[in-house]
Amino acid sequence: MKPAIVKSLLVAVTLTVLSSSLARADDAFASWNDGPAKQAILDFVKATTTQGSPQFVPPEARIATFDQDGTLWVEHPMYTQVTYCLERVPALVKTRPELKNKEPFKTVLSGNREAMAKLSQDDLMKILVVTLTGMRVDEFTAEAKKWIAEAKDQRWKRSYTELTYQPMKEVMEYLRANGYRTYIVTGGGQDFVRAYAEQTYGIPPEQVVGSAGGTKYGYDKSGKPLLTKEPKLLLNDNNAGKPEGIHLMIGRRPVAAFGNSTGDKEMLEYTKAGDGARLAMLVLHDDADREYAYGPAQGLPDTKVGTFTQALYDEAKKNGWTVISMKNDWKVIFAFESR
Amino acid sequence: MKPAIVKSLLVAVTLTVLSSSLARADDAFASWNDGPAKQAILDFVKATTTQGSPQFVPPEARIATFDQDGTLWVEHPMYTQVTYCLERVPALVKTRPELKNKEPFKTVLSGNREAMAKLSQDDLMKILVVTLTGMRVDEFTAEAKKWIAEAKDQRWKRSYTELTYQPMKEVMEYLRANGYRTYIVTGGGQDFVRAYAEQTYGIPPEQVVGSAGGTKYGYDKSGKPLLTKEPKLLLNDNNAGKPEGIHLMIGRRPVAAFGNSTGDKEMLEYTKAGDGARLAMLVLHDDADREYAYGPAQGLPDTKVGTFTQALYDEAKKNGWTVISMKNDWKVIFAFESR
Repeated sequence: MKPAIVKSLLVAVTLTVLSSSLARADDAFASWNDGPAKQAILDFVKATTTQGSPQFVPPEARIATFDQDGTLWVEHPMYTQVTYCLERVPALVKTRPELKNKEPFKTVLSGNREAMAKLSQDDLMKILVVTLTGMRVDEFTAEAKKWIAEAKDQRWKRSYTELTYQPMKEVMEYLRANGYRTYIVTGGGQDFVRAYAEQTYGIPPEQVVGSAGGTKYGYDKSGKPLLTKEPKLLLNDNNAGKPEGIHLMIGRRPVAAFGNSTGDKEMLEYTKAGDGARLAMLVLHDDADREYAYGPAQGLPDTKVGTFTQALYDEAKKNGWTVISMKNDWKVIFAFESR
Repeated sequence: MKPAIVKSLLVAVTLTVLSSSLARADDAFASWNDGPAKQAILDFVKATTTQGSPQFVPPEARIATFDQDGTLWVEHPMYTQVTYCLERVPALVKTRPELKNKEPFKTVLSGNREAMAKLSQDDLMKILVVTLTGMRVDEFTAEAKKWIAEAKDQRWKRSYTELTYQPMKEVMEYLRANGYRTYIVTGGGQDFVRAYAEQTYGIPPEQVVGSAGGTKYGYDKSGKPLLTKEPKLLLNDNNAGKPEGIHLMIGRRPVAAFGNSTGDKEMLEYTKAGDGARLAMLVLHDDADREYAYGPAQGLPDTKVGTFTQALYDEAKKNGWTVISMKNDWKVIFAFESR
């Protein structure tokens, strides 16, 4: 074909694809009820991606960041990664029998859930260190992938990756269809989330920013290079650590950010402080029937997991962040509901 | 248009584009002489991107990493970033007059190049700390961009970004045209390199991995969020730090890696240790007329900048890394030569 023909064919094909993607905007939000939250996303995407719009954002700057626990999947009654670490203890003790009669490992091995729920932060940290470090990075990834494929949540008896929020997956898809790159920015372990983020959310490893430990380069007995996970925290990707981690790993300020707790406050502030159109959203857990309802902003006790304080709610209202009500804004919470 | 028609048009267009891109492979290497180095790149790309090839690499895994100093641009007689830090001292002393009569700042202010060349590593570190930290990240980026736009190298009287190697830019372009994502993995400062990498190499900030300091999130007097560069090293992205930094920032093992010194050894080892086709290349500075010739592998003194030892040369030969001779493999070194 001659170049001119190729070009006109390309234009025709592109226009067809474009017009059908516009027509599909409503289908894209099948799990959302109409309301201010859905509208805020549509308005933001239109303003930032329409050529000639005063708030147009060039494609290379289209960065959207998502907290994970409580924003993309269920975080109650316990962060999934903590469950992973606790469930790894029996296998770990087989290779390190000296831990068997030592606390806090003894309590975990007892299987007594009440006693486990009372473990202190220091005890949990000891468990995290031995279950998340000391092995090769590829070994860790293989273990985490295997666990994620097999483990089940106690309430729904479903895998954790099924307990992801369908409406948020639709937001990620819609943003990507409009030229945004979607990042996870999580307080959870970077390597842990990377083990399933690509399959679960379509987010590749290089777009997962999380709490990150150091690794150590070395060689095995045959001289083959390997990286070992070290018990050394490089980035605590929570609170102020979120904008700091975003600068370290992405090097650009996000245009849109999504969270659900005080740990996301600084990321949303940092995102909104940029020029032009900005989108900042907080998921409010206010649906005790279909998921959970928790946090002082609900007049409920602070569970220390995904704390949504009244102060955060007030800051959101004052700064023009949009609060997503799970109860009112989401027609469907999990994909399995609509099957 | 009906979907079937659109699809067949897309196939036709794609085939046309593909065949013309293959035909252009030779044009893509206009600055290279024919020889084993150019051939190694062509063979590698063909093996990893041809559907059905036993060494086919899926697009998401196509990661290529490039050292910067000495691999993408001139590193002699002094790393450009060190020059930047030295040239920032006069402006810095204006805002911090207490440093004026203190060493090593006094020596730098004297302008005595011989005395400056004798500054110890400790002295240089003091200069790096005060010129690279303590300011907002956006202020630093603006200063670095301004300097890069104005500063000139002493030998060629040209800007540093003109002293980038045209053949390496062609390699980056060619890899990108074949679905690879190109990353810079540099011992230089991550924020410094990010200030010009997009414009100079087409590499966006999120694809620059470098030695990285911490930042601190806070607020200015009006309550606006800001990030300040802290004098705390999070990642020393040299030697073993390169594979460690690659794991931290990318989370995938590269399929191709390019370097020029002992600081790149571990990155090349790590890259080659993966399965399937791998490309590891080292730029040898052996052209004293057109650029520089240095390093023990050339039988020349070790200048401590971009050390290419005999041991590195031997490891390259033993492990199937390709050594690029600037003298023999590159028809043109800088784009301005061919204008």
